[in-house]
Amino acid sequence: MSEVYATRRARLRERCNAAGTAAALISRPANVRYLAGAAPRCAVLLLGKCQDLLVCAVPPEDRPAEGRPDEALALHVLASPGGDPAVAAADLAAGQGAESLAVEEHHLTVARHRALSSVAPRLRLADLGGAVEQLRVVKDEEEISCLRIGSEIADQALGELLESILVGRTERHLALELERRLVDHGADGPAFATSVATGPHSGRRGHRPTDRRVEEGDFLSVCLGATYRGYRCEIGRTFVIGTSPADWQIELYDLVFAAQRAGRESLAPGAAYRDVDRAARQVLDSAGYAEALPPLTGHGVGLEIDEDPQLAPAAMGKLDACVPVTVEPGVHLPGRGGVRIDDTLVVRPEADGGPELLTITTKELLAL
Amino acid sequence: MSEVYATRRARLRERCNAAGTAAALISRPANVRYLAGAAPRCAVLLLGKCQDLLVCAVPPEDRPAEGRPDEALALHVLASPGGDPAVAAADLAAGQGAESLAVEEHHLTVARHRALSSVAPRLRLADLGGAVEQLRVVKDEEEISCLRIGSEIADQALGELLESILVGRTERHLALELERRLVDHGADGPAFATSVATGPHSGRRGHRPTDRRVEEGDFLSVCLGATYRGYRCEIGRTFVIGTSPADWQIELYDLVFAAQRAGRESLAPGAAYRDVDRAARQVLDSAGYAEALPPLTGHGVGLEIDEDPQLAPAAMGKLDACVPVTVEPGVHLPGRGGVRIDDTLVVRPEADGGPELLTITTKELLAL
Repeated sequence: MSEVYATRRARLRERCNAAGTAAALISRPANVRYLAGAAPRCAVLLLGKCQDLLVCAVPPEDRPAEGRPDEALALHVLASPGGDPAVAAADLAAGQGAESLAVEEHHLTVARHRALSSVAPRLRLADLGGAVEQLRVVKDEEEISCLRIGSEIADQALGELLESILVGRTERHLALELERRLVDHGADGPAFATSVATGPHSGRRGHRPTDRRVEEGDFLSVCLGATYRGYRCEIGRTFVIGTSPADWQIELYDLVFAAQRAGRESLAPGAAYRDVDRAARQVLDSAGYAEALPPLTGHGVGLEIDEDPQLAPAAMGKLDACVPVTVEPGVHLPGRGGVRIDDTLVVRPEADGGPELLTITTKELLAL
Repeated sequence: MSEVYATRRARLRERCNAAGTAAALISRPANVRYLAGAAPRCAVLLLGKCQDLLVCAVPPEDRPAEGRPDEALALHVLASPGGDPAVAAADLAAGQGAESLAVEEHHLTVARHRALSSVAPRLRLADLGGAVEQLRVVKDEEEISCLRIGSEIADQALGELLESILVGRTERHLALELERRLVDHGADGPAFATSVATGPHSGRRGHRPTDRRVEEGDFLSVCLGATYRGYRCEIGRTFVIGTSPADWQIELYDLVFAAQRAGRESLAPGAAYRDVDRAARQVLDSAGYAEALPPLTGHGVGLEIDEDPQLAPAAMGKLDACVPVTVEPGVHLPGRGGVRIDDTLVVRPEADGGPELLTITTKELLAL
């Protein structure tokens, strides 16, 4: 495993050298994890001129389930646990004789950036930009395997919920029960705050559960995900409560299903992000729901739940093989409710069978 | 309620004017909530030269349980939900004719700060520093009442857990069950990730639950809190599993209990933060546990779980009346485990009966 991290760091170092900086400071937690393995909270990684260092305020804990820092990496634990590892790392970089240091300006606050400048005034601070985020977009099979296991866990948790009695239970309780089931089945925890939306709330992206109870005739939309060894997946489904869905419910469901299928089918290496978005969006657009549409219809997943790429109308770039993304169009009609359908898939070439669906719970409209 | 927010904003405006800036941009979420009421994610508050504005990427949701933005405040919703409200607010401030704008440099990233400069190049950006955090330290009775209700909820959740069978259950499951009970009793959610630590993990601050199961003879330390109307409290207790604690367990427990009592008893208006810390710390120090001690023995609570003041050896400042703090010394012995005892209290003058204990679960050493 250690080799994986060393290779990732070598790739980043190449980019830094090409940009003219000999040293880099990585502070964004998911980026630190990607390059150094599981690290304590607030740890930063110094890609130094002479030596790479993981700089932590407290020593790493022994947590076998979540992994440990790369053992090939030297560890520097601050003498005072109240100190800022980023400031200490800048000091260490200067001590190694670095003249410039690339930092994550999209993560460091202005105040921390100033503290770095003042501890190492001769060090020229440059911007690393999203270099690590870009490396993270294409996943290796080990990473995809974590997402696959996480998706199985989420499918199981959702499947069990569907077998239980739902009418009369609150959104909050259903969300908590799903999260408990995720952990039961081996997740580190939920990948994000589980969303359960009933009746007029249904179909709303990121709806935070309330005390509203499930009623006969409701749409019920659920969105959940498992974190497994740090990797986060996502599944969303919409159901109807009672024996027979209303006509408007069937029509809306079929429409969102068609949009989601169009999005899934357009996933291929070389497809532009915006074309995937357009494939899903135009189905809803042409049915007159342009106003009700979300700003994006999918996004990358990995060590964070909302990573590059964004599948959105103004997104620039093209998909590669081995990029896991969600496809999650939805329509929410204020006062009435709506439908969301959300899968996690991995982009694969046609020759390998096309997009690999990780979240396999049925997308038929189930009446529960 | 609207008056409360208007008064808070007026106090902040006085501070800004005294510091020579006519306008301020508040971006840190807890600070926005303090000055503007419950606001959508990523919303920012502009204290403008002519008008105050809540700038949001999406419109506020209707969530009666958690409150809504102050109705006296004008709302500005971005045309594109992908935009940055802080950048839009800087543009609006420039449009109002402001020459300078104080921003929260300890919250804004370098990249966002640069985007503000580039949208409004004539606006001089100054640093608001921790001005809002300072206003938040002393609470009004409405805020304290939210903390009191949250503490009752946490006490209830903990009390119910103690009545159930614990041996054989994992740390993760116990933590999830506590979080479910918090919500059952009316919390918005947990105030922070619930910590359940058994055996060799016990006594460790912020321990993240693992799959280790509770065993006979273990110390079990639990730390949880409820969020109620946005306000977060904290309680921590340590128990022993089985009928008779070992001698070392009784001794260690009595010691930490004595330290925690000394901390609690030193809470008074005018007491220096470091003196409260020293009162608790010296009990453990003089028993030879100087090495095993955490960097702080307590901290403020409110809209965030870890607010000013810090009760730590190098902290500067003195307590005021109506400041809620935790007192939470602990000792963790690597390989063996340890004890933490943690209460939330409100500083009150002697004439009002001294510190008000919000978390009232017993601190006797219970054998479960």
